[in-house]
Amino acid sequence: MAKKWVYMFSEGGESMRDLLGGKGAGLAEMTRAGLPVPPGFTITTEACNEYFKNGRKFPEGMWEQTLEALREVEKMTGKKFGDPSNPLLVSVRSGAKVSMPGMMDTVLNLGLNEETLQGLAKLTQNERFAYDAYRRFIQMFGRIVMKVPGEKFDEAFEKIKQKYGAQKDTDLGVEALKEVVAEFKRIYKEHVGEDFPSDPYEQLRRAIGAVFESWFGKRAVDYRNYYGIPHDWGTAVNIVTMVFGNMGDDSGTGVTFTRDPATGEKILWGEYLPNAQGEDVVAGIRTPYKIEELKEKMPEVYEQLVKVSELLERHYKDMQDMEFTVERGKLWMLQTRAGKRTAKAAVKIAVDMVKEGIISKEEAIMRVTPEQVDQLLHPRFDEKAKEQAKAEGRYLAKGLNASPGAATGIAVFDADTAEELGKKGESVILVRPETSPDDVHGMLVAKGILTQHGGATSHAAVVARGLGKPCVAGCEAIHIDLTRRLFTVNGKVVKEGDIISIDGSTGEVFVGPITTIEPKLEEEEELLALLSWADEVRRLGVWANADYPKDARQARNFGAEGIGLCRTEHMFFEPDRLPIVHQMILAETLEERQAALDKLLPIQKEDFKGIFRVMEGLPVIIRLIDPPLHEFLPKYEDLVAEVTELRVRLEYEKDNAELKARLAEKEALLRKVAAMREANPMLGFRGVRLGVLWPEINRMQVRAIMEAACELTKEGLRVYPEIMIPVTANANELKILKELVDETARKVMEEQGVTVKYKFGTMIEIPRAALTAGEFARYAEFFSFGTNDLTQTVYGISRDDAEGKFLLAYVEKGVIPANPFQTLDREGVGRIMKMCVEEARQVRPDIEIGICGEHGGDPASIEFCHIIGLNYVSCSPFRVPIARLAAAQAALQHEYGLKKKVIV
Amino acid sequence: MAKKWVYMFSEGGESMRDLLGGKGAGLAEMTRAGLPVPPGFTITTEACNEYFKNGRKFPEGMWEQTLEALREVEKMTGKKFGDPSNPLLVSVRSGAKVSMPGMMDTVLNLGLNEETLQGLAKLTQNERFAYDAYRRFIQMFGRIVMKVPGEKFDEAFEKIKQKYGAQKDTDLGVEALKEVVAEFKRIYKEHVGEDFPSDPYEQLRRAIGAVFESWFGKRAVDYRNYYGIPHDWGTAVNIVTMVFGNMGDDSGTGVTFTRDPATGEKILWGEYLPNAQGEDVVAGIRTPYKIEELKEKMPEVYEQLVKVSELLERHYKDMQDMEFTVERGKLWMLQTRAGKRTAKAAVKIAVDMVKEGIISKEEAIMRVTPEQVDQLLHPRFDEKAKEQAKAEGRYLAKGLNASPGAATGIAVFDADTAEELGKKGESVILVRPETSPDDVHGMLVAKGILTQHGGATSHAAVVARGLGKPCVAGCEAIHIDLTRRLFTVNGKVVKEGDIISIDGSTGEVFVGPITTIEPKLEEEEELLALLSWADEVRRLGVWANADYPKDARQARNFGAEGIGLCRTEHMFFEPDRLPIVHQMILAETLEERQAALDKLLPIQKEDFKGIFRVMEGLPVIIRLIDPPLHEFLPKYEDLVAEVTELRVRLEYEKDNAELKARLAEKEALLRKVAAMREANPMLGFRGVRLGVLWPEINRMQVRAIMEAACELTKEGLRVYPEIMIPVTANANELKILKELVDETARKVMEEQGVTVKYKFGTMIEIPRAALTAGEFARYAEFFSFGTNDLTQTVYGISRDDAEGKFLLAYVEKGVIPANPFQTLDREGVGRIMKMCVEEARQVRPDIEIGICGEHGGDPASIEFCHIIGLNYVSCSPFRVPIARLAAAQAALQHEYGLKKKVIV
Repeated sequence: MAKKWVYMFSEGGESMRDLLGGKGAGLAEMTRAGLPVPPGFTITTEACNEYFKNGRKFPEGMWEQTLEALREVEKMTGKKFGDPSNPLLVSVRSGAKVSMPGMMDTVLNLGLNEETLQGLAKLTQNERFAYDAYRRFIQMFGRIVMKVPGEKFDEAFEKIKQKYGAQKDTDLGVEALKEVVAEFKRIYKEHVGEDFPSDPYEQLRRAIGAVFESWFGKRAVDYRNYYGIPHDWGTAVNIVTMVFGNMGDDSGTGVTFTRDPATGEKILWGEYLPNAQGEDVVAGIRTPYKIEELKEKMPEVYEQLVKVSELLERHYKDMQDMEFTVERGKLWMLQTRAGKRTAKAAVKIAVDMVKEGIISKEEAIMRVTPEQVDQLLHPRFDEKAKEQAKAEGRYLAKGLNASPGAATGIAVFDADTAEELGKKGESVILVRPETSPDDVHGMLVAKGILTQHGGATSHAAVVARGLGKPCVAGCEAIHIDLTRRLFTVNGKVVKEGDIISIDGSTGEVFVGPITTIEPKLEEEEELLALLSWADEVRRLGVWANADYPKDARQARNFGAEGIGLCRTEHMFFEPDRLPIVHQMILAETLEERQAALDKLLPIQKEDFKGIFRVMEGLPVIIRLIDPPLHEFLPKYEDLVAEVTELRVRLEYEKDNAELKARLAEKEALLRKVAAMREANPMLGFRGVRLGVLWPEINRMQVRAIMEAACELTKEGLRVYPEIMIPVTANANELKILKELVDETARKVMEEQGVTVKYKFGTMIEIPRAALTAGEFARYAEFFSFGTNDLTQTVYGISRDDAEGKFLLAYVEKGVIPANPFQTLDREGVGRIMKMCVEEARQVRPDIEIGICGEHGGDPASIEFCHIIGLNYVSCSPFRVPIARLAAAQAALQHEYGLKKKVIV
Repeated sequence: MAKKWVYMFSEGGESMRDLLGGKGAGLAEMTRAGLPVPPGFTITTEACNEYFKNGRKFPEGMWEQTLEALREVEKMTGKKFGDPSNPLLVSVRSGAKVSMPGMMDTVLNLGLNEETLQGLAKLTQNERFAYDAYRRFIQMFGRIVMKVPGEKFDEAFEKIKQKYGAQKDTDLGVEALKEVVAEFKRIYKEHVGEDFPSDPYEQLRRAIGAVFESWFGKRAVDYRNYYGIPHDWGTAVNIVTMVFGNMGDDSGTGVTFTRDPATGEKILWGEYLPNAQGEDVVAGIRTPYKIEELKEKMPEVYEQLVKVSELLERHYKDMQDMEFTVERGKLWMLQTRAGKRTAKAAVKIAVDMVKEGIISKEEAIMRVTPEQVDQLLHPRFDEKAKEQAKAEGRYLAKGLNASPGAATGIAVFDADTAEELGKKGESVILVRPETSPDDVHGMLVAKGILTQHGGATSHAAVVARGLGKPCVAGCEAIHIDLTRRLFTVNGKVVKEGDIISIDGSTGEVFVGPITTIEPKLEEEEELLALLSWADEVRRLGVWANADYPKDARQARNFGAEGIGLCRTEHMFFEPDRLPIVHQMILAETLEERQAALDKLLPIQKEDFKGIFRVMEGLPVIIRLIDPPLHEFLPKYEDLVAEVTELRVRLEYEKDNAELKARLAEKEALLRKVAAMREANPMLGFRGVRLGVLWPEINRMQVRAIMEAACELTKEGLRVYPEIMIPVTANANELKILKELVDETARKVMEEQGVTVKYKFGTMIEIPRAALTAGEFARYAEFFSFGTNDLTQTVYGISRDDAEGKFLLAYVEKGVIPANPFQTLDREGVGRIMKMCVEEARQVRPDIEIGICGEHGGDPASIEFCHIIGLNYVSCSPFRVPIARLAAAQAALQHEYGLKKKVIV
């Protein structure tokens, strides 16, 4: 006996989503819940996979089971497939386990031919309706199933409309539509090489095959690669009895959500278009009503819809997005699925549903993505201003929401101009047909990026996400004319210099400015609730990287539990200190150097006091000086230019004593800078290497830290300094520095007559440090993974050089799945991190291990940090809330087996 | 019952070396062989260790056992310890498991006091002899046991000599010596704070304690740290009956070797000084006789010595270095040990002993160090010219042989002058009191380095070994006067500019030039034999790195079995090609670039043909282009200077059209170079990254390789090209390049109508490559560890920047044990190499894995390569013989459990 390939809707359900796909499972679930679903059935995803295994043949028994199911539908509807007198018409729809928008459209009205057409006309008493349905069917079948170029049909249709002087499609009468049908059939034959199939079974067979084929279509494969969806899931095929919303004013079609997808408010939200089919809504020919109007127009249908809506939301425990059709007063549900929503709505719905007792706190945590939290904390368009802009007709088009955030600025059409204006302080939106590495310098200064072509993995999208800038990509509705420096969209013209606004979170593009909102966490009531629940379940601590008291305060407000990285070199760069720093570096003797350091000491002490005060009661990790010293000096090449200039001038002005003096001075400086210059400063004389050979700098820093800590302790504050050594590669380096730190700390505490508990630890940012973690753990009480540098060394990539020159090109070409500086490379960098943690814990079980690279704020990387058992992640203050959520999700996923369930 | 801490010589033997130390074991072995050894005993190394465990107290029973053994010696000699009528005198000598020269001197004549002194005088009928022995004893005991500054005794002695008008020590009569004794006792009391101990037992107790203490003396600890000798071995203490070589003309003392330690010739070789004690030989007061003269003077003693010598060599199966004393016509053997020897002698002795049936080939292999082979293959002083120089009185002094090799050049006293002259082509020997990192630029150009201070781990020694330059360090006999720019040595003056010669292999310093010999491997008969035996046992292949046919030929002559690394970029730098390379890099269009590549193709093809011809029948690994392209262009800072100069000139010469044109040209070039510039080129856009994004360069190179291979194959040659991809960090990069290589190779072979077997593989020089080796092995048929870059990335160190700036300082300070660019860092770099090999072999068991970094020629690193199971090492042609021996030693050591037994 053949395997079961086909399931009636009454046989399936939500639990069979893998087998029936999302759409099929939803239709089955609704059918079994007694909701009005047009009769139909689903061909399984297994059948799809078998089809490809079989060398593109239907698996044994599938077609027979399809015919059997069709008989069943005939019984239920009383209609017959191919019967001229009472024809059964069906729609054929793909449906994978997860929604893959744009992978494959629907074929409607399947089963029509010259005979059944007449039956439909008679039955509906509307010949025009029947011919309109037929021409739509030929067009859809031709385009979707047989790959006839869609514009061929569109052009022919336009021609006939002109011929008949029709403004709208609905202006065409029966005769004109007959002409359209004939012309469409001609086009079909011309491209396919055979007549349009009149046998409904042949139509069905081909449509099913086409849905299967679409699974390995280029767009679908690209989409799956991008989102990491396995290629062996396959798609199901749904065959559904046609119902018609275009049978008059008692018919119609609509889409509705159980809550407002923009705000999350608990109201029935949606649109309804009377006397129309679903595709008419999409085509935007008429403006649909708001769903509330249905209440007046068809109160019974509205009541029924409200009940269905409540039932479905309770049933699925999530906000639903439903498609429905009303055929002559009768409501039919055509689809239900979890509804897409804005970040704000996602948070509100999740929190409200907990309050309503529908889901648990843990489930709520899994319903919101860290990226959504990110959106909420970034400037975004004021929803009302956006509505207003739409009302004013300033909405232009919608592209792909390629990188979140909102931006307003002047449209600029090339990267050089963008860079020039951007550097002058102009807010610029870079508008390009598509971008390439040649445009990166312009993207760097632009507030946002808008492209005409390209998808979610296009250069523009990848780079923009990398830079954290809003981007709307693949906005095909706009037509860019680079020579005239403008774009046109739906008849409107936007010239270079005109203000436009783009919403990278939604893909919307507007002309003119839109007010943006600077969010305040303390006002985001639902988000605060969600984050507090996250704090209850997460195992990872969330700390922040902050060099200044102001950043530390921000971090603490956002919930940071410590400072994971306070860099001290930024303090050296401040203009009032740089001259002293120069003096220190260029000193000829140890005494000179010490004199400069003595001047720096009180300044650094005040810096540390500021941070300690803000973080009172929480740990603060201070990293000793990290960069090579020449970074504080004038650049070599600038000095070369200055010296060259002075030398040449002296040739022409031989007796200019002032020039001579300046030359001598610059030459002396050049010699010193030349001696300190490095071929690869990233791997040079910096961090602990400096500390071992020039210990006096570190000694000053440790003294400043400890004096600050002691003085505040005497004021009654609780201060927890942790002193961190950078660039260590060898345990002996740590041993030497530990002696220096302990000795200096002891001296200061003796002088001050107070004891401060401090910790000694190290960055792990060099592979060798991770590879010899056991040795390191003998000296260090804490480790902090510097994954920026660790990625540079493990990957052999200089980030400064790589991102523009080849790394983004690599992501674009699919050589690497993601920019490893954004998302931790688990195979390489992650692997030695894991080794490091395990071996360090063997030597010192209570060692405190965290991460302070940028990955500390990246959700996927945070998940990995949870998996390998870090104690905390430290990220930029702005990303602290994101990290709190991501850490909770990691805990729920890996400790409690919960799955993320996020609809964006 | 107490443990046995003391062994009579008759109880011990060679097998107890760990317990009795080298000297004790040798004395015991000789005693048991019936040779004339003065009666004595050994206190064990365990006693020493227990002493320190006990808080510096003799272990229980040790002193009692010592006294018992002393009684035994009294019985054997008929003398009594402390007996005024027939006193037993002893020497007390340290003796660890391995020889640690200079750790602790010997105390002679122990047992003397005012009473036994009289007995000795009576017994020898020589009062002067007795007082001389007594003053020597006080001096030795004071200096060595009680740490009285030696110069105090020397000064007092000189004063008394002046007072008595004595030229030589022997000119002093009894009265004078009595005065010396009194003065020495006064000095002793002044420094020690108590009288010189007259109780012989007290003398013995203290001397034993002092020997134990010397084990943890600073020099001994430093020595052990440097040579990696464990600190828990401890030292034994030997108590030996005194015999006197200074009892008249029928007495004497000498040192003899069983073979010539300079040439390895099988003759009794040594020196003899009549009427003298051992220390007189060292003091160089009289010139000793050659040992042959003993044949005439004391034929019986000579005969006996020859017999003893033969017996000991057969017994120990190695060339022996023996100390003996003749007391009134009777021969006493005081020590035997394996004799130190020159590199040439080491090889000859090992090979001769195999021929003589004394040792096996395998044992012979373990008797020679790879460093000795290295010495034999480097220029060295002609032994005859050296003898001649000595005869001419040009020998100046002997320092520490800190880095091998010989050099002649002018003495220069500061690094700046050395650099200046060196760059002009002068041969310079840099002479410094000691060196510091500030001198490195001078050391880089010097032919050799000579320092007055500092040991084997001094900056000069470490840097010189690192640079492979000869160095004599710590030559305290020379006195440098930097202000007068000269040094004096034994009354001679050497001024800046004078020619000197240094032998870093022996530590000898000469004035004037000495002829050097360029060795030829084919003439080194014994070495050839030894290497051929090495080839029989080694498991590692030995390949060579060579970019040019001439180097490849050298390598093949030295025994290389393949080319492990042929770099292609050197070919790009040749002056006739560089313009085409510029054209290729600066091309504005793909067509332009392709045109340049088309010009390079035939040139590269000829390069490869040259190498393939020389290596006919053997594999040749060719690495595709590696460095970033900007390395081929003019330097950024040079262009900045040129452009600046032109701009300023134009200010003064506003209408100079030529200047304007040149400026425009240079500015255009500067823009391009600026765009390609990198912050850290080592981690930049190079290697496979270039190959992925600019595939046309690699495609040209692969075509050149395959066309060369095909054309030679058609000529009947056997060609085995292996194409290697550099800088890979991600398996997808390999996948892309494999497609490029296979496709290009297929095309060429089709065009040429011939098939060539080639391999595709990759460098492993980025940590991530090693960490994802399993993935890599899916595409690569071979791996080659690029341990230079791998060390840079694993250690986070840029070699160019690090060596001068901090790495050598690190070695000097003991932060790291060795320069990781010389000797593979097993803990870090080695660890991921091991992981890489294991995981690659799991995926592709027959994968060919080698190493082509400089470590491939370093013996310790070669041993590690053997341990982790590489297939071959590839090194510079010059080091191929060294690698052959090192590989054999690794195999014998790790597969057959043989130990290295090398005396240098």
